[in-house]
Amino acid sequence: MSNKLTLALLQLPVGNDVAINVRRAADSIRQLKVDNSQLQLAILPESFNAPYGQDHFPKFAEKVPEGPTCQALSQLASDLGIYIIGGSIVEREGDQLYNTCTVWAPDGTLIGKHRKIHLFTMNIEPANAGGVAFDEAAVLTAGSELTVVQIGQQKVGIGICHDKRFEELARIYRNMGCTMLVYPSAFCICQGPMHWELLQRARATDNQLFVVTCSPARDNMSGYVAYGHSMVVNPWAQVQREAGEGCEFIVEEIDFDIVEQVRRQIPIFKQRRTEVYAKARVDL
Amino acid sequence: MSNKLTLALLQLPVGNDVAINVRRAADSIRQLKVDNSQLQLAILPESFNAPYGQDHFPKFAEKVPEGPTCQALSQLASDLGIYIIGGSIVEREGDQLYNTCTVWAPDGTLIGKHRKIHLFTMNIEPANAGGVAFDEAAVLTAGSELTVVQIGQQKVGIGICHDKRFEELARIYRNMGCTMLVYPSAFCICQGPMHWELLQRARATDNQLFVVTCSPARDNMSGYVAYGHSMVVNPWAQVQREAGEGCEFIVEEIDFDIVEQVRRQIPIFKQRRTEVYAKARVDL
Repeated sequence: MSNKLTLALLQLPVGNDVAINVRRAADSIRQLKVDNSQLQLAILPESFNAPYGQDHFPKFAEKVPEGPTCQALSQLASDLGIYIIGGSIVEREGDQLYNTCTVWAPDGTLIGKHRKIHLFTMNIEPANAGGVAFDEAAVLTAGSELTVVQIGQQKVGIGICHDKRFEELARIYRNMGCTMLVYPSAFCICQGPMHWELLQRARATDNQLFVVTCSPARDNMSGYVAYGHSMVVNPWAQVQREAGEGCEFIVEEIDFDIVEQVRRQIPIFKQRRTEVYAKARVDL
Repeated sequence: MSNKLTLALLQLPVGNDVAINVRRAADSIRQLKVDNSQLQLAILPESFNAPYGQDHFPKFAEKVPEGPTCQALSQLASDLGIYIIGGSIVEREGDQLYNTCTVWAPDGTLIGKHRKIHLFTMNIEPANAGGVAFDEAAVLTAGSELTVVQIGQQKVGIGICHDKRFEELARIYRNMGCTMLVYPSAFCICQGPMHWELLQRARATDNQLFVVTCSPARDNMSGYVAYGHSMVVNPWAQVQREAGEGCEFIVEEIDFDIVEQVRRQIPIFKQRRTEVYAKARVDL
């Protein structure tokens, strides 16, 4: 049985028209499948169907899974017989809005719905590298559930962007048996040079698994400028593939035998001193 | 009140004669204090007083604090009126041997004794980057206590080398209020290029504190070749200072105002979803 998985990262531009954004994503995935018949999983960016920003969130919110974006993704997964990790969209449920990633099986069924657990709040001062101030919590509600989906033979943990700053979330996914973490992410260009690659390599080396991000393409004219640099980091914490800043599609084969190799050679998982941690733990 | 601390990292060579190793360390610290009157803290490497290796551990073990190495460090701290984080030595207590870091106050009293919690076990295969096999647990006993010392105004968490691979330990230190982590470390040259800097930057960015390592100088003729590259990483996860591979002393001023700046601008500590983690936690 093959322990490999071929995935695509779609670092797409995102404009103001939802229908156009969704059609571009769908057309791109269809073409990638034509060009790469072995493709099994397509991954979209955070906020792939609408511009990212506090003012935009209420305007572009949809129901999950009844909304048009979800219906298009479901149809696409089933037409092509592939998994889709649908980046994120703004989900409306009652009066609440969430930043939500949907995951679709090759038969078109919804197998995972991840509501961003850690909303993006940041206030990097102008003096430092350009600065950025943002507060998703002013408009969105945070999710409270972890999301693990079965993709082929692998357990995959889902997070959205800011979620990847929280090593405790990745640790739980690792303990649940995940071999890959996927974070659709519209990381800002202020944080990007400091921490984008670092965070992914940190999660990969501590948890000895693949870490995959998918960003929107950079658009310096948009209100919120995404960093780009969609990335696959392997369990040695090496950057296996990395996109540039513009519109770019990456197709990459993931060899999950590497997970086992790293875990055998650097056996840190079983060296963890859980009884020591439990005794000393300060839950703040 | 100053929020600054001037520290020295002594990336020393380590030979087969304990008395010579200890004298070289002491003489070097004395000279650094003469040259830098503001020096407040000296940090030594893991296994600074004797060669590192399973065969060597029983031979060079000493009692803490009665042994000659500890007595020399105590005298030195009190003579110079500085703190010393004494790298590590092999400690003998009854039939047990530990890899132990002692910490000395400016009046010569022992204020911390850290027994390495995570013993170094690794089996990196020859096919990958040269390979290394090592098992401290064959000879040493692991410690079971965290160690936080007060250095001036700061709480400092202590780990030894392999301890820094375990993000759960660093998280507890952060939750206990630490603003700096110090890991005397004889990291192997096989792991070094892959993970040395990464691990320190990972702990720094997740916990928003300073991370400091002190390695022995590299000696390619020794049985165990240390990586070198003693390092200060700041709370932005930037490498603030880094040694090369050979014998080298770094004197560096640490500005703890940066801890507060980072924690205010990227307020991840209070965004942690501890109730979500507690509910989902899988303790393995």
